Amino acid sequence: MNAVPSSLQQQTEQLSESVTRPIPGSRKIFVEGSRPDLRVAMREITQTQTPTIFGGEENPPITVYDPSGPYTDPDARIDLSAGLPALRARWIEERGDTEQLGQLSSQFGRGRETNAKLDTVRFPGRVLPRRAKAGANVSQMHYARRGIITPEMEYVAIRENQRLEAVRDTLLLKQHGGESFGASIQTLITPEFVRDEIARGRAILPNNINHPESEPMIIGRNFLTKINANIGNSAVSSGIAEEVEKLVWSIRWGGDTVMDLSTGKHIHETREWIIRNSPVPIGTVPIYQALEKVDGRAEELTWEIFRDTLIEQAEQGVDYFTIHAGVLLRYVPLTAKRVTGIVSRGGSILAKWCLAHHKENFLYTHFEDICEIMKAYDVAFSLGDGLRPGCIADANDAAQFGELETLGELTRIAWKHDVQTMIEGPGHVPMQLVKENMDKQLRECGEAPFYTLGPLTTDIAPGYDHITSAIGAAMIGWYGTAMLCYVTPKEHLGLPNREDVRDGIMAYKIAAHAADLAKGHPGAQVRDNALSKARFEFRWEDQFHLGLDPEKAKDFHDETLPKDAHKVAHFCSMCGPHFCSMKITQDVRDYAAEHGVDESQALQEGMAEKSAEFLAQGAEVYRPG
Amino acid sequence: MNAVPSSLQQQTEQLSESVTRPIPGSRKIFVEGSRPDLRVAMREITQTQTPTIFGGEENPPITVYDPSGPYTDPDARIDLSAGLPALRARWIEERGDTEQLGQLSSQFGRGRETNAKLDTVRFPGRVLPRRAKAGANVSQMHYARRGIITPEMEYVAIRENQRLEAVRDTLLLKQHGGESFGASIQTLITPEFVRDEIARGRAILPNNINHPESEPMIIGRNFLTKINANIGNSAVSSGIAEEVEKLVWSIRWGGDTVMDLSTGKHIHETREWIIRNSPVPIGTVPIYQALEKVDGRAEELTWEIFRDTLIEQAEQGVDYFTIHAGVLLRYVPLTAKRVTGIVSRGGSILAKWCLAHHKENFLYTHFEDICEIMKAYDVAFSLGDGLRPGCIADANDAAQFGELETLGELTRIAWKHDVQTMIEGPGHVPMQLVKENMDKQLRECGEAPFYTLGPLTTDIAPGYDHITSAIGAAMIGWYGTAMLCYVTPKEHLGLPNREDVRDGIMAYKIAAHAADLAKGHPGAQVRDNALSKARFEFRWEDQFHLGLDPEKAKDFHDETLPKDAHKVAHFCSMCGPHFCSMKITQDVRDYAAEHGVDESQALQEGMAEKSAEFLAQGAEVYRPG
Repeated sequence: MNAVPSSLQQQTEQLSESVTRPIPGSRKIFVEGSRPDLRVAMREITQTQTPTIFGGEENPPITVYDPSGPYTDPDARIDLSAGLPALRARWIEERGDTEQLGQLSSQFGRGRETNAKLDTVRFPGRVLPRRAKAGANVSQMHYARRGIITPEMEYVAIRENQRLEAVRDTLLLKQHGGESFGASIQTLITPEFVRDEIARGRAILPNNINHPESEPMIIGRNFLTKINANIGNSAVSSGIAEEVEKLVWSIRWGGDTVMDLSTGKHIHETREWIIRNSPVPIGTVPIYQALEKVDGRAEELTWEIFRDTLIEQAEQGVDYFTIHAGVLLRYVPLTAKRVTGIVSRGGSILAKWCLAHHKENFLYTHFEDICEIMKAYDVAFSLGDGLRPGCIADANDAAQFGELETLGELTRIAWKHDVQTMIEGPGHVPMQLVKENMDKQLRECGEAPFYTLGPLTTDIAPGYDHITSAIGAAMIGWYGTAMLCYVTPKEHLGLPNREDVRDGIMAYKIAAHAADLAKGHPGAQVRDNALSKARFEFRWEDQFHLGLDPEKAKDFHDETLPKDAHKVAHFCSMCGPHFCSMKITQDVRDYAAEHGVDESQALQEGMAEKSAEFLAQGAEVYRPG
Repeated sequence: MNAVPSSLQQQTEQLSESVTRPIPGSRKIFVEGSRPDLRVAMREITQTQTPTIFGGEENPPITVYDPSGPYTDPDARIDLSAGLPALRARWIEERGDTEQLGQLSSQFGRGRETNAKLDTVRFPGRVLPRRAKAGANVSQMHYARRGIITPEMEYVAIRENQRLEAVRDTLLLKQHGGESFGASIQTLITPEFVRDEIARGRAILPNNINHPESEPMIIGRNFLTKINANIGNSAVSSGIAEEVEKLVWSIRWGGDTVMDLSTGKHIHETREWIIRNSPVPIGTVPIYQALEKVDGRAEELTWEIFRDTLIEQAEQGVDYFTIHAGVLLRYVPLTAKRVTGIVSRGGSILAKWCLAHHKENFLYTHFEDICEIMKAYDVAFSLGDGLRPGCIADANDAAQFGELETLGELTRIAWKHDVQTMIEGPGHVPMQLVKENMDKQLRECGEAPFYTLGPLTTDIAPGYDHITSAIGAAMIGWYGTAMLCYVTPKEHLGLPNREDVRDGIMAYKIAAHAADLAKGHPGAQVRDNALSKARFEFRWEDQFHLGLDPEKAKDFHDETLPKDAHKVAHFCSMCGPHFCSMKITQDVRDYAAEHGVDESQALQEGMAEKSAEFLAQGAEVYRPG
């Protein structure tokens, strides 16, 4: 173990303070499963009572899905240099099909461990990794197919239900019928359903055995729509503490997984810090690092270098790998007439390799070798869309769809090995072409989870691509995409800072939730209903707390009406005290309630007498008492 | 004429400077029509040459729709106290069916003119208004139905075409087939088509004869999708100069019309300043002002007070009025069981009035009287959705759809009077219920233009409702909505400031443009294609200039790579100099081009020989020369 580098330690200590304050109005709760070490973290938003004049009833707390991990738990002690507790370590060990290694298996990894120059940036407390015993397959898909419900699966089932039973008999459950386009939406998620979905390949539970710190989550179209946030420095900018901060910031606001797209000379060490401190699955694109190992010369990439990189990262605990194995030689020239050619970094690296060697993509030819690695650590495939369109003009073309068909072929191979697999999707697609992508993906890839970047529905708004893409993301989420990869306002322009990450996450939480509502996911509307009721009743604080970003909502409100008194005022800032539609509406409601006017009566009865009464009472909303 | 109040003058002079700088990379152009005083303003975005290594070709300037008026024209002298030039005055006079009045017709208006206390806030140079001669109907719909193509209609036709002929033979016109859901999309907009659409009621050209400063524009689903920005102070905040600034700011970024929702004691004077300085149509909700005239007591509203308000505002030059004539007595109790009751201010005022008097809504009973006023000034109806849902739970309910059916009935009455009419729509609607709104509106209202607020697709994101609603707006725009009313991030929380207005406008420009692309509007993809080509060729400045917000795009870029040199650098800031997918893509393209590998050949020919050549040349992108 190394001594913790002091400057880095200082930075991470500061970080702990700034991003770990509890979310206003919320508390962390744990729902216990079938064993005492299975405690599913959720966030409970407390609500105040309805004001007396509106009826005075109690409002139940609302439970929401919470990927923020221990960071938002005031009872947890955060020490980034120690990493998070290894929540799943015992479950993994109990299965008895893995062993702790005596040394790192990758040549590169071993080199980094012994390089004294890296002492100042190395994560201090890493234990040696585990690997499947010879011949074993430790993937959740493998267990699922053998009928085993793992603690991870049970955790996920409890988590997905969001304690809906707590509001089961309330009006909060009122919800419109959804349109799920053939998804298999459940009213209650059972561990058996989780197992079955994983076994069928319709969902993945990404959790490398070397990332025992992760809280299990599931990606599949019959579950809540998830979002991914990308972080990662580039050669030009950013450091380790900054990236860890972006991780914590991402999950605070609702990122379900995080992809570390770092490049640069400390890529290995940055990743270690991130994984050790991440309660969510971490994805990477191993070809980025492999390319750095050959000094950026794509044509010098070899299977051996790539293989060592996969093992290096698998032993660090990466939960899913983007693998661009569908970029086939024959598809590459199909991109030559595009407006923006190949825009995926991974895709263009492999295209260059294919052209330079006039050989088939080595990720494709070695795909079964890759499967062997994946199942030894339970790393999931995220089959990369290296030929995704980079602009509206290039959407849904032969290159893109050719690759998608190959990804379907690869999915079947991965499934033969019981390796969990999801499929990456575009990119830039105008609205009228979005559904074709989803339908083709479901068909070609046997309903394996789709994981899309956006898509951006127009190219004309650099600086606002979180919005151009949230539109496409909401739609494709509705149509069946399981996880939405966020886009920040800086897309195409630069590297996102903390506020950009927040904006990107928020846009995507909105898209994912709008999709869940539209699909008719059970209980999806509870939070909308609770927030709307709070809004109607001028419970300002509750409205803030129930929102995706309580702090922003409060700040915006306070810009117009900064006094605390206004947060319980019975009017809202848009209309002023005299001119409030909600005030008048309450009038209508009181009237209908008091006078027994229900929907059918009102249409039949004369109301003249009631009108006279109303005027006699002063035609005002707030009568004393 | 009053002396210009000095403090207000000073404020408006400052305003002129801050919001009237030209938009970077653009210049104002004018396309002349059939007469020399018919000069249609457009914005032309200049482009630089493609870098030599990518081919070195010239890139044509791109013309875009431009509602910003003279403010972005460096040749125009802006004096807010004088107002804008009366562009349409001669056209109106030439028709010979109007007369200038000797005094204001509204009692309230006359009272304001003679009140010395208002000297410090009154717009100085107002001339007396015009009105139709006795028995005349001066609406564009009336002219259209008599077969007359007005200069306004010709202006609109030229404007809608965006000088597409300038790029007619270029690849920029490449576009995906659209899905217009039965709209009648034209490849070229002719003045006759404009006339016909107005005559059929499928489009409106809102332009009060007392707002001759306005540049004609059209709202209809067979034209470009438009957006509206709301401005307006409330009793709590905001002043005249601030509101005029919001107007100029709104149109700078692309607002096609502006609704002035001001309340408070200087509502009349604020409106005058806004109209005199607005090149876009101005809409209002007259019931707001009428309510102020009865000190906020809805039950004291009378037809006479409302009528005087309509005339007061019509003579100021308001181009369209929101009239909540569909809030019928029998619909009101249908809202009692809603989660958020009636959230439209206008709707709730009228609901209260109906209940208090047990009488039918006086806007409904006096609807033909209102039509008489509308046609004397050519004010268009925006039939208000007073019973729109205020939350997801209340979407598409009996109250909302009952009102919509009544709006259909009223549309037919308005059309009987040749009064231009559009229909306001919801509100809050989850994605799966959006299309039902559009389909029902088209059916009930005979294809009269739909003008929707959002809709918001979830309630859980206060502080981000520009995004929750841009999703719904893009979808409903695709389905056929003609104009999208923007929502700012401050919705539900407070009054928007200048940056909120910008964010709201941008979100809605995106939604409207995404809708145009999806419908397959001719030429809609030109700007996307041009921007994407610029992006691919690392023409950073062109990319900024072609975007909706060049200043924001440049600022974001400069945060990561602030040096000017980087704006012509052949790599982008996300990937760093060594690791750029576009660089590699160019390689593929060069390769395919040089070696004659087209799509079919590539699949047939062996490529080993080419591969060897490529390696021999160094496998690098940028060969000298």
